Amino acid sequence: MTYCCGILVQEGLVMIADTRTNAGLDNISTFRKLHVFEQPGKRVMMIATAGNLSITQNVVSLVTEGLENPETGETETLSNVPSMFAAAQLLGRAIRKVRDTVGDNLQSSQLSFDVTMLFGGQIAGRRLRLFMIYAAGNFIEATDDTPYLQIGEHKYGKPVLDRAVTFKSEIFDALKLGLVSMDSTMRSNLSVGLPIDMGMLRRDELSLEINSRIDNTDGYFHELRDRWSIALRQAHQNIPPPPYGRTRS
Amino acid sequence: MTYCCGILVQEGLVMIADTRTNAGLDNISTFRKLHVFEQPGKRVMMIATAGNLSITQNVVSLVTEGLENPETGETETLSNVPSMFAAAQLLGRAIRKVRDTVGDNLQSSQLSFDVTMLFGGQIAGRRLRLFMIYAAGNFIEATDDTPYLQIGEHKYGKPVLDRAVTFKSEIFDALKLGLVSMDSTMRSNLSVGLPIDMGMLRRDELSLEINSRIDNTDGYFHELRDRWSIALRQAHQNIPPPPYGRTRS
Repeated sequence: MTYCCGILVQEGLVMIADTRTNAGLDNISTFRKLHVFEQPGKRVMMIATAGNLSITQNVVSLVTEGLENPETGETETLSNVPSMFAAAQLLGRAIRKVRDTVGDNLQSSQLSFDVTMLFGGQIAGRRLRLFMIYAAGNFIEATDDTPYLQIGEHKYGKPVLDRAVTFKSEIFDALKLGLVSMDSTMRSNLSVGLPIDMGMLRRDELSLEINSRIDNTDGYFHELRDRWSIALRQAHQNIPPPPYGRTRS
Repeated sequence: MTYCCGILVQEGLVMIADTRTNAGLDNISTFRKLHVFEQPGKRVMMIATAGNLSITQNVVSLVTEGLENPETGETETLSNVPSMFAAAQLLGRAIRKVRDTVGDNLQSSQLSFDVTMLFGGQIAGRRLRLFMIYAAGNFIEATDDTPYLQIGEHKYGKPVLDRAVTFKSEIFDALKLGLVSMDSTMRSNLSVGLPIDMGMLRRDELSLEINSRIDNTDGYFHELRDRWSIALRQAHQNIPPPPYGRTRS
């Protein structure tokens, strides 16, 4: 399993991904799922991946090495596409190409073609954008109304984002809340685990402010986890006791 | 869908259930899923149900009207079983009886035999207990280590219980956190909805202190929801900003 989230706020973009992969509970590995493409001052892109690892690695290789655009006949990569929208289309085409190659054989082996991706970033002179790309190669985009997107095991980590993240949230708050969301997921699903990779890109900066990994020796992450649990235990103490009695209303 | 939780703390037991049933998004109804059996001073039991409504209603009718115990030959109901353990066994037998009656026909209609229940309460002179009963009629019991049990759409509402509920929690805090857990679930899954039924039983009281319903005009529930969201937004402000930079550790 996997959990990744992307949060797009006024100040910028945060993307967080775990690194655990598993083929059964007795076959656990660590693979990077947050892929960073950075040409400082020109373009910064991040891809977070969930699903079958052979598919996601293949897709990332295709968009790095290049894939022909059937309309223009030119070879496109994340380094030369003109816009984030064109880059999302490129990722969609790469997913469909991998499906054409291995989809039938996966099906013969009773495996589904399982892949979803978060794709965010900015190209110089263009808007900062965040997309979620599905297994059919289609995609949606985060908006001011719903500034975050999730892939993988998303349910445990959704309530905190729902209640606390808005487009106006400060970017460091978005990062903290993303880490809380990740921690909530890791507590409840053993197949989502440390280390965590994260990237933080301020709008119009065109260079990552944070590109870092959290492992289980990370003091800040332990502190965040403890402080959050304490804060939750205190939060309900300020709510008055329920006024209900024996009478059904 | 359904969400129900039961929390067993030192001071007593809280059980909460939503009331929404659906056969498709365009076929939504309200049915009570928290069933209360109370003989004040003698025994108090609550059943919260999830799964196929025809199965759960059938099971509740069987344990109310009576079912023969094959070992003793006597007809047992929730009113005459000697212990909560025997009552949980009775519910298990009722589930298996319904499966014997309709299981094959459900399967013929491509429907699974889908039922889980929370069952909690106390009989005079006995311990207050909380069980979760599965579709096979087997069951587990809440303990001091894990004082809460959930059925139905459980993931959205689990993190808050995980972090904030312990066996030592005050009973009104358990109720508040159970309502927050329910609210988190309702925000994320439209098939879980108001009204909410709840019961609160203090240990050794043998009479419900709360047996009430929350609908969408309920002022306290709106206040709880608002205060919790504000508390979450404030909680992360007390956590220092992340110290991470561009260097991957």
